[in-house]
Amino acid sequence: MKFSVTILGCSSATPTSDRNASSQLINHNEKLFLVDCGEGTQVQLRRNHFRFIRIDHIFISHLHGDHFFGLVGLISTMHLLGRKNRLHIYAPPELEDVILLQLRISATTLDYPLHFHPTQAEISATIMENNYLEVITLPLNHRIPTTGFIFREKPGLRSINSKAVKEYNVPYTVFEVLKTGSDYTTPDGKVISNEKLTTTPAPSRSYVYCSDTAYYEAVIPAIEGVDVLYHETTFMADKATIAAEKFHSTTVEAATIALKAGVKKLLIGHYSARYDDLQPLCEETKTVFPESYLTLDGMVFDI
Amino acid sequence: MKFSVTILGCSSATPTSDRNASSQLINHNEKLFLVDCGEGTQVQLRRNHFRFIRIDHIFISHLHGDHFFGLVGLISTMHLLGRKNRLHIYAPPELEDVILLQLRISATTLDYPLHFHPTQAEISATIMENNYLEVITLPLNHRIPTTGFIFREKPGLRSINSKAVKEYNVPYTVFEVLKTGSDYTTPDGKVISNEKLTTTPAPSRSYVYCSDTAYYEAVIPAIEGVDVLYHETTFMADKATIAAEKFHSTTVEAATIALKAGVKKLLIGHYSARYDDLQPLCEETKTVFPESYLTLDGMVFDI
Repeated sequence: MKFSVTILGCSSATPTSDRNASSQLINHNEKLFLVDCGEGTQVQLRRNHFRFIRIDHIFISHLHGDHFFGLVGLISTMHLLGRKNRLHIYAPPELEDVILLQLRISATTLDYPLHFHPTQAEISATIMENNYLEVITLPLNHRIPTTGFIFREKPGLRSINSKAVKEYNVPYTVFEVLKTGSDYTTPDGKVISNEKLTTTPAPSRSYVYCSDTAYYEAVIPAIEGVDVLYHETTFMADKATIAAEKFHSTTVEAATIALKAGVKKLLIGHYSARYDDLQPLCEETKTVFPESYLTLDGMVFDI
Repeated sequence: MKFSVTILGCSSATPTSDRNASSQLINHNEKLFLVDCGEGTQVQLRRNHFRFIRIDHIFISHLHGDHFFGLVGLISTMHLLGRKNRLHIYAPPELEDVILLQLRISATTLDYPLHFHPTQAEISATIMENNYLEVITLPLNHRIPTTGFIFREKPGLRSINSKAVKEYNVPYTVFEVLKTGSDYTTPDGKVISNEKLTTTPAPSRSYVYCSDTAYYEAVIPAIEGVDVLYHETTFMADKATIAAEKFHSTTVEAATIALKAGVKKLLIGHYSARYDDLQPLCEETKTVFPESYLTLDGMVFDI
């Protein structure tokens, strides 16, 4: 089952010629989820050949402009492209007013329903789920209310071992129950353990998006052992004081969170425009957490 | 004296990978004026190597998103870059609320003054002037209140003919008066005509920005004989019915306005995303008005 993240923007506050403002597209089982939507995101989606119509859920971490100024343009373009399907937006409550005001003054009446789901930055909550995936908010520590997002696969169903069910004469009517882990009792009362009749599903995978935040150990219990953690690294370690003042993180701080949480892989991003060469940020992150990777616009990472 | 226009976006409603939403930068005597500010304009300014700090006046033609969704991002970036100078915004009155609301929810307090000058779409009025240039609104015919903008040089001062003033013994204290066209009377009462003492200034130049509008002959008297007219051509001539319904213009309609107004040069733009190849739009425009030019992002035209 596909599970990947495409980086649409890796810049912090001010976009540059080759680094757009924050946005990422997550593909899970061919369902597309947009996380943050800085100015220029709709063009980045085009450049990366994503069809807008396939995005039904958009998650906004917080209301600094570099994370949402592109949303109203994307909503408008979806309308102009003939969208009819409901679009779900998970964001701090004030965003609804901003979007509706802009649509109103531009005399735009959308041809599709827009469904705002207000997030609460103080608590962790499951805000979306389908059969395979759930999305959980993660309170962060920034200047204004901010949530990260945990994308976690639901535990998979066990697979039927076709040879074994034949051997034990198990009727197909109980297959769905077997997939959930139940044992099978034969008509003459003999119990066949589930392990004999099914095989273990692939392990559930998880992706965590942490932007923007100061160094914040409170996130660790919720992200322990995740497959891929994206954590902002606005600054290098020598700018730790500025980072703290601005409620952002350094390379070393992101790496320390990754290390303490025992994640498998760390992606870094949200770089200050002061850095032309980003390689030193990656190298500095690796000194603390070797499995660290630089993200750049257009890069795709499998989870 | 420099007078040029740089195309920052030539697309209509939906931006594409290589055509940004509407925006143009006018350089007159090294003063920069931004006209419209679709999403992505700040990155286009960077790509074309303009320093944001030099822009003190921004003109917004109307409140369709492709003409203003980039403004709040530009305003925010100017703040982050340390701007202190006042920024003047000439726009329909509702825009002020939209900008202030977005700054408020993102907890941004600008370090520089923002001065909104509400425009009125029903009348033509001089909304800005300096020593050399004036900017006049031009009512257009669109679905919502919309103004074009006329950038017109003020009549230049006459130049002193240094040989002649020496010959007639004219004191330098009267030079400024001579430049305005006055004759000179010698101490013994003899009148020397101004034509003998000064030379004619370069003719005043003018640039007109017409977007968005249906075919609208009412603009003709105001733009008669201008040097360069930019007029939207969202559609080719075979789409005249759609153009009229959407209050946009075709190639032939823009060319007809240019022809009837006797302008010197026509620039076309604001192309529908349906056109991959734009050359046919230019050729069709030229069948009516030969001095027509295609605009593309990044092109610069001298006025």
